[in-house]
Amino acid sequence: MFESAEIGRCIDKDTYDAEAPALREALLEAQYELQQQGRFAVLILINGIEGAGKGETVKLLNEWMDPRLIQVNTFDQQTDEELARPSAWRYWRQLPPKGRIGVFFGNWYSQMLQGRVHKRIKNAVLDQAIDTTLGMERMLCDEGTLIFKFWFHLSKQHMKARLKALQDDPLHSWRISPLDWQQSKTYDKFVRVGERILRRTSRDYAPWYVVEGVDEYYRSLTVGRILLDGLQAALKAKSRPLPHPHAAPLTSSLGEHGLLDSLDMNQALDKDTYTEQLISEQARLSSLMRDKRMRRHSLIAVFEGNDAAGKGGAIRRVIGALDPRQYRIVPVAAPTEEERAQPYLWRFWRHIPARGKFTVFDRSWYGRVLVERVEGFCAPGDWLRAYGEINDFEEQLSEAGVVLVKFWLSIDQQTQLERFKAREQIPFKRFKITEDDWRNREKWPLYRDAVGDMVDRTSTEIAPWTLVEANDKRFARIKVLRTINEALETAFGKD
Amino acid sequence: MFESAEIGRCIDKDTYDAEAPALREALLEAQYELQQQGRFAVLILINGIEGAGKGETVKLLNEWMDPRLIQVNTFDQQTDEELARPSAWRYWRQLPPKGRIGVFFGNWYSQMLQGRVHKRIKNAVLDQAIDTTLGMERMLCDEGTLIFKFWFHLSKQHMKARLKALQDDPLHSWRISPLDWQQSKTYDKFVRVGERILRRTSRDYAPWYVVEGVDEYYRSLTVGRILLDGLQAALKAKSRPLPHPHAAPLTSSLGEHGLLDSLDMNQALDKDTYTEQLISEQARLSSLMRDKRMRRHSLIAVFEGNDAAGKGGAIRRVIGALDPRQYRIVPVAAPTEEERAQPYLWRFWRHIPARGKFTVFDRSWYGRVLVERVEGFCAPGDWLRAYGEINDFEEQLSEAGVVLVKFWLSIDQQTQLERFKAREQIPFKRFKITEDDWRNREKWPLYRDAVGDMVDRTSTEIAPWTLVEANDKRFARIKVLRTINEALETAFGKD
Repeated sequence: MFESAEIGRCIDKDTYDAEAPALREALLEAQYELQQQGRFAVLILINGIEGAGKGETVKLLNEWMDPRLIQVNTFDQQTDEELARPSAWRYWRQLPPKGRIGVFFGNWYSQMLQGRVHKRIKNAVLDQAIDTTLGMERMLCDEGTLIFKFWFHLSKQHMKARLKALQDDPLHSWRISPLDWQQSKTYDKFVRVGERILRRTSRDYAPWYVVEGVDEYYRSLTVGRILLDGLQAALKAKSRPLPHPHAAPLTSSLGEHGLLDSLDMNQALDKDTYTEQLISEQARLSSLMRDKRMRRHSLIAVFEGNDAAGKGGAIRRVIGALDPRQYRIVPVAAPTEEERAQPYLWRFWRHIPARGKFTVFDRSWYGRVLVERVEGFCAPGDWLRAYGEINDFEEQLSEAGVVLVKFWLSIDQQTQLERFKAREQIPFKRFKITEDDWRNREKWPLYRDAVGDMVDRTSTEIAPWTLVEANDKRFARIKVLRTINEALETAFGKD
Repeated sequence: MFESAEIGRCIDKDTYDAEAPALREALLEAQYELQQQGRFAVLILINGIEGAGKGETVKLLNEWMDPRLIQVNTFDQQTDEELARPSAWRYWRQLPPKGRIGVFFGNWYSQMLQGRVHKRIKNAVLDQAIDTTLGMERMLCDEGTLIFKFWFHLSKQHMKARLKALQDDPLHSWRISPLDWQQSKTYDKFVRVGERILRRTSRDYAPWYVVEGVDEYYRSLTVGRILLDGLQAALKAKSRPLPHPHAAPLTSSLGEHGLLDSLDMNQALDKDTYTEQLISEQARLSSLMRDKRMRRHSLIAVFEGNDAAGKGGAIRRVIGALDPRQYRIVPVAAPTEEERAQPYLWRFWRHIPARGKFTVFDRSWYGRVLVERVEGFCAPGDWLRAYGEINDFEEQLSEAGVVLVKFWLSIDQQTQLERFKAREQIPFKRFKITEDDWRNREKWPLYRDAVGDMVDRTSTEIAPWTLVEANDKRFARIKVLRTINEALETAFGKD
């Protein structure tokens, strides 16, 4: 969930200087339109890692927009008046009225995060708090509030550097925090709990936006653009509740440097190393599948990737040393008539393996947020809510002991072109290349955005995405096999 | 929540024989239309008290409709195949496809109910299961499934009689149940857990219908009509997700004998008894309010009722012996401009008392499901979701130690007429009677239905409704005071 906010995204000063004035003007205009319409309120929740620029961003928004129409609230220690009433009272009394923007710093999410990190509450109680929160946010949306939830993120390394810089700066060194962020353990716990909360509370009507905070220019432009897009969509919408004003986050399309671009595509293996490692990883998998601890688990491997990225070849290597009675490959194409008559996830539920078994999905439920999104096969409302539904689905798998590994096989455009051409030359491969493939190629940027959003929203602790650099097929196959083996060993180790 | 399903509702055979054939034909027709459209599936969940006619009703539906298009599933012991997979798998594999009706007997609710009653799980884990369930049902609705949730109910007394009758019947005595229903404790626990589940899972997109099961004719017609109304609304709707096909339950309008009609309106107090009891109950309240245990609680009393039912007089008696610094009366009329710019519940949240204090709401947040519903001041979608929002709200109050008592002051039409006329005669009371009052009177049946639905859906263990027979003002005032006093003593007793 935080992968694409740990790659050091930045924007240079020139780009920022070129874009900021127009963005600022548009935001100001949207703000006045919001006031004039008076149809809905805007609530901005600010959370995330210490030092990731939460305060600076709020300060900037106040500078950019008309501060008379923004109210910033910090919820630290409860006052006597607040302590004497139900805990939600302090938030209700500060809600922005229609036509205004409210910024909630240290909101309900901070409370539950701190509570869980400090072990004052257990997961079940955390989930109850999450449940209450979802009810509250749903109600606010139904009543005409547009909610933006920002998680400002930093990798551990970036956080440490940032804290050090702040400490050395006399203007900032006075700042304290209830958590001891100097401790590496604190960061880990905070991120783990944060991930659980984001996974369960990112809903189509109020999704989370994860923003990497290391670079001020990137951070500011990203937040500004997300706000502007959401505001403009909601201002245009005529109905209530506001119909999905939230597009997917812009992070992947902002700047040329997305998550996929951060991969080192030159990684490769020579033939001898490959052969040697292939044999040993296959043997390892075969042995793990026969391990008696496998009786408590099942294994699911999801393969997605660019066309011609080598999914088929990788799958063949994975099942190469396995007993065919243990695994099953499910190729996912257009749904059958029977499948179309059922809820979307039904056609995947029917292939969930029993304990001890292994199912390979050659393409998967992620089709909804990839091809269906890009090709417009389903309405935006459908794919927007799919992220949450998929996270719920995978959580149910995980709780039942299913080990779930998800691969995105990534190649660059040049490599794809070469493989397409090669396929057209080789008679027995010609069936593998169609008009569709050439057409999809033209939508490369759309797919890149969709993949970025997919990983941002569905790569979770319980079911992380593995991005596989697949320009070199040998490297990709070994990485896939090794990832599966490690996932199984980790699961066995936890038993 | 179960009040109106414990009053012994019944329908005579003649009425049943007159209505059943037309209902049956209409259901059959709707069923074929459902198949022809193939746009959505129907899922019927059957839960409730042992012996309340769950099985008989399902059997009847199969007789009435085309059984080829209905699939009934019972989920008892998990099979080997099911045990080897995530627990939701067994439900997914049995989901009805679009165009069909599926009946789930012993569904996800039965599992969590049994688990909690047998103390295999705690409330926090129950709430996690509820959360998962809500996610599942929401997803099903978004994907085009129409969900009906029926809770078949019996009062404890009726259940015992019914079990005895079944036991004596050789055709039924073989039936067993995992719970020992002969025990009175089992009933209490089951109903308590059931209420928590219904309270948290009755949502506008999939509300619960509580059906009293004591009389076969009543039960059958009620279920049939609810299904028919929901089906017809959904068949007419063109959009997806289905736009609130669920009207409020018909239970109150079915038959002339509703919850309010079951009150004994002849109850009265003579003047001496009244004076004596008034003094003693007022003294009791005054003393309770000064009790040091009151520091951990606050008190909210909600007054709703027919026009001229005597709310004002009752409120005056309640606060008669109290220190004005301890209480506050909030009269609720049309919202102010500031209040209209906020979510609906905001104007009530702002008046939530601090610990140790007492707030009287003269009319309340229930306006949304009473006057706003009846007069069409808000859209059906808004008041339908309000039941769930209000339950969430009151749960937050209760968890913060607020003691919440809710009164519906009920008078009959004749008494109201006399009071209206009297008001017109007495100069200083003339301001209390307006054209509106006469107009509202014409909507008596609509208000009766709205009150029935309100009590069915929002009378909960943590915040029960008290129906007050108010034809006699003295009787009503004493009942109100005594109820408040008992609620405080119960709360203090639990500390």
